[in-house]
Amino acid sequence: IETRLHETPGKINHKIDLDSPKVATQEKLGAGDKKVYCRCWQSGTFPLCDGSHMKHNEATGDNVGPLIVSVAKAE
Amino acid sequence: IETRLHETPGKINHKIDLDSPKVATQEKLGAGDKKVYCRCWQSGTFPLCDGSHMKHNEATGDNVGPLIVSVAKAE
Ligand code: FES
Ligand code: FES
Repeated sequence: IETRLHETPGKINHKIDLDSPKVATQEKLGAGDKKVYCRCWQSGTFPLCDGSHMKHNEATGDNVGPLIVSVAKAE
Repeated sequence: IETRLHETPGKINHKIDLDSPKVATQEKLGAGDKKVYCRCWQSGTFPLCDGSHMKHNEATGDNVGPLIVSVAKAE
């Protein structure tokens, strides 16, 4: 088992708001909006995805990817 | 280091669509919608959060939480 000494096994957030007890994000969207949200906790533009999940997946054999939210255009 | 033998260090998804090369989710929302999305990969109602992040945080000392998306009501 190649153990990464600096990472606590099981933790998935090693970068984002580490001093916060719980990192929950509120986002307000409007008609016609489209946003790509990070779910790998590695993005430099968190809460938005910046593609870092690709490097994470290659390094760990994981298969995580973003949440893409689209809001219908106003009729 | 308490290493969980069944978990590969660094992987964050141990449950969701494990045979998929990349788990990206598309969500379509409308005016007035509000959804709570999972970012811990432990939810039984993935892509939506079911509170499992609390058990994950307690077990690992992590601080992850959901993404809450609200869409403005149609004017
Ligand atoms: S950078 Fe985290 S999901 Fe894309
Ligand atoms: S169950 Fe995963 S963030 Fe709440």
